[in-house]
Amino acid sequence: MRIADRMRDLGTETAFAVADRASAQAAFGAAVYPFHLGDLNFRTPRNIAEAAYLAIKEGKTGYCPNAGIAPLRAALAADVNARRGTSYTADNVSIQPGGKPVIGKFIQTLMNPGDEVLFPSPGYPIYESQIRYFGGKALPYGFVAKEGTFRIDLEGLERSISPRTRLIIVNDFHNPTGAVCSPEEQGELAKIVRRHDLVALLDEAYFEIHYAGVPRSIVSQPGMAERSVLLYTFGKKFAMTGWRLGAAIGPAEVIALITRLNVNNESCSAHFVQYAGLEALRGGQGEYEKMLKELRERRDAALSILNSIPGVSCFSPVASFYLYPDVTELMDKKGFGGDYAAFAEDVLVRAGVSFCTRIHFGEPLPGENRHYLRLAFSGIGLEGIRAGLNRLREYAAGCQEARD
Amino acid sequence: MRIADRMRDLGTETAFAVADRASAQAAFGAAVYPFHLGDLNFRTPRNIAEAAYLAIKEGKTGYCPNAGIAPLRAALAADVNARRGTSYTADNVSIQPGGKPVIGKFIQTLMNPGDEVLFPSPGYPIYESQIRYFGGKALPYGFVAKEGTFRIDLEGLERSISPRTRLIIVNDFHNPTGAVCSPEEQGELAKIVRRHDLVALLDEAYFEIHYAGVPRSIVSQPGMAERSVLLYTFGKKFAMTGWRLGAAIGPAEVIALITRLNVNNESCSAHFVQYAGLEALRGGQGEYEKMLKELRERRDAALSILNSIPGVSCFSPVASFYLYPDVTELMDKKGFGGDYAAFAEDVLVRAGVSFCTRIHFGEPLPGENRHYLRLAFSGIGLEGIRAGLNRLREYAAGCQEARD
Repeated sequence: MRIADRMRDLGTETAFAVADRASAQAAFGAAVYPFHLGDLNFRTPRNIAEAAYLAIKEGKTGYCPNAGIAPLRAALAADVNARRGTSYTADNVSIQPGGKPVIGKFIQTLMNPGDEVLFPSPGYPIYESQIRYFGGKALPYGFVAKEGTFRIDLEGLERSISPRTRLIIVNDFHNPTGAVCSPEEQGELAKIVRRHDLVALLDEAYFEIHYAGVPRSIVSQPGMAERSVLLYTFGKKFAMTGWRLGAAIGPAEVIALITRLNVNNESCSAHFVQYAGLEALRGGQGEYEKMLKELRERRDAALSILNSIPGVSCFSPVASFYLYPDVTELMDKKGFGGDYAAFAEDVLVRAGVSFCTRIHFGEPLPGENRHYLRLAFSGIGLEGIRAGLNRLREYAAGCQEARD
Repeated sequence: MRIADRMRDLGTETAFAVADRASAQAAFGAAVYPFHLGDLNFRTPRNIAEAAYLAIKEGKTGYCPNAGIAPLRAALAADVNARRGTSYTADNVSIQPGGKPVIGKFIQTLMNPGDEVLFPSPGYPIYESQIRYFGGKALPYGFVAKEGTFRIDLEGLERSISPRTRLIIVNDFHNPTGAVCSPEEQGELAKIVRRHDLVALLDEAYFEIHYAGVPRSIVSQPGMAERSVLLYTFGKKFAMTGWRLGAAIGPAEVIALITRLNVNNESCSAHFVQYAGLEALRGGQGEYEKMLKELRERRDAALSILNSIPGVSCFSPVASFYLYPDVTELMDKKGFGGDYAAFAEDVLVRAGVSFCTRIHFGEPLPGENRHYLRLAFSGIGLEGIRAGLNRLREYAAGCQEARD
């Protein structure tokens, strides 16, 4: 069967191969500590589950409007306004089956073939995949390690802008580094966006997985609401990743076109699931707060062990549930240089620790000479974190025995 | 904000405007008989609802594999094999958030820009929208009224095939006519597909909304399983339209690419909803049988009144929940000629009957000189059907008074 040419340009998430490898290893009876999972091992809060069941029983099981049910669109606009200082209404909200669909729909709606789109590297690999799939030119921008965190390389970013650059993808509350832009950085970034008349996708999937005070969105910077589409997801905050519920939020004319893509692709997002989303926004937030507290404990426990390992150094992530340790010295000491695949395999076999690496989040940029892993603490409890990272410390110290 | 050029080629379902107009009319306090709805006013069977709730409580609320959970893929392959004589395995099944996503994914995977794709007219409007959106040339094929049913105009279809024609979309169990191909017609169609080395999308959304014996699929014709992708949906059979659960079923290499589109677009279909789908396939079929029985009663009641109206003539649909009456004489008598919009407005205002027409299913083809409506009997009960169509009969007889 002849396959369409465009499929050659379609990327994927190579992290799934890590999960497969970890499963295979576990199938041999080996203990595997899963730091590769970008999923949560928390239950969806009970009130949300009950709201879904009630909606099913009440017959919310047929089609609903393409853009989502009116009360959810209104409630989400209100919630986003309260946290981001915007003034959205229901017309600015298109409910989606997850946050991820917003990436491709933003690109389809606003990017012509040949247009340049700035995207973060390291970053979520679907950005680059979708830019390339729809014929755009993907321009990566990098990060610099500075003062205990990662900062967007704003100078490098602005230097790469040409008259063909139309869009920028920003993932503040960043996967994989866990970095959050400072107010100054947000202001500078917004200036660049306005100066070059760009339109932004603000992927704020981890906006409320945030450990230091109240999160601020770039959308509240002057002029940004008019030139941004927000990617919102219920998945992380409410432990609802498998429910597939999110939204695109932005200027009404763009949202109407994004909804027209829904007419063509999905008809609508699942009907009763939207009532669960409504309960998530309006109901008690106790379970969310408990989850955030536990995630913080996991983060701190993981950090403390990681930073005790010679050759490993890790910043404390302000948001997300990821750690992005610099393991350059450890990889060198173990003789792997920059060979991530061989290093990851060695650690998995010898220490049972499974993780993603820099290259699961894009090709390293020119001049990037440090090596990083991404360890997720969302899918593994405190005990597993301590046991796994202590195994990694033993591995680093070189006192483990070869398995085979 | 500059919108991407491709959005100009994105179609929609104009039927939604009919629903809006009907709602507006009902808001004035007028009785409106909703024959425009392509949705079911049946509840999802209780065992399916309970299976979803149980899965939520068991924590099936995180991500699942991109192609769907293994037991559902296997169960669906077995179900399709039993009913269609195929030999699919789980590797041939990619679970989707509805049947609709299969249309665009089939086209993306197998059609290059400039390729010609055959599609039915009248037919579901998303076919043409997606062909054009992804840069293909949409070649409509028509139907001929013959021996009490609609038959695909196979001669016209084959005449329009050129060396650039690569794909064909077939919607046996046809929306909007309710027609089903005879075994001979299926054989002829399969011959044409093989002779011209086409690849087929077999949209069988209404395969099991079938009123005359056991349905047969074109996929069981020689050579067709290798060159077809089946569109399967749980929506109609199990009254689950708003759950968004379906599947693409076909050759493993194509299914793997379709799943790669899921990695990019949706991550996965909702996790616990797939356990509901598993119960739908494996659990008792009593509710489905009850629904089918009632749909048949509705069909017969509607047909009997429709065919008693002077100037209206309707075949009995063998499948689907649609009637496709020829109203040419009625429209002529009322002075509307071919002006569907004015006729529909007049009938809505004077008789309260809301419906879609031929043009919601594509532009009439050259030489097509009869006029048709599409009346859905899925979203309106027996009483409403009788009351509404009796109002239509009074309208046709010209004895109603103007409302205004």
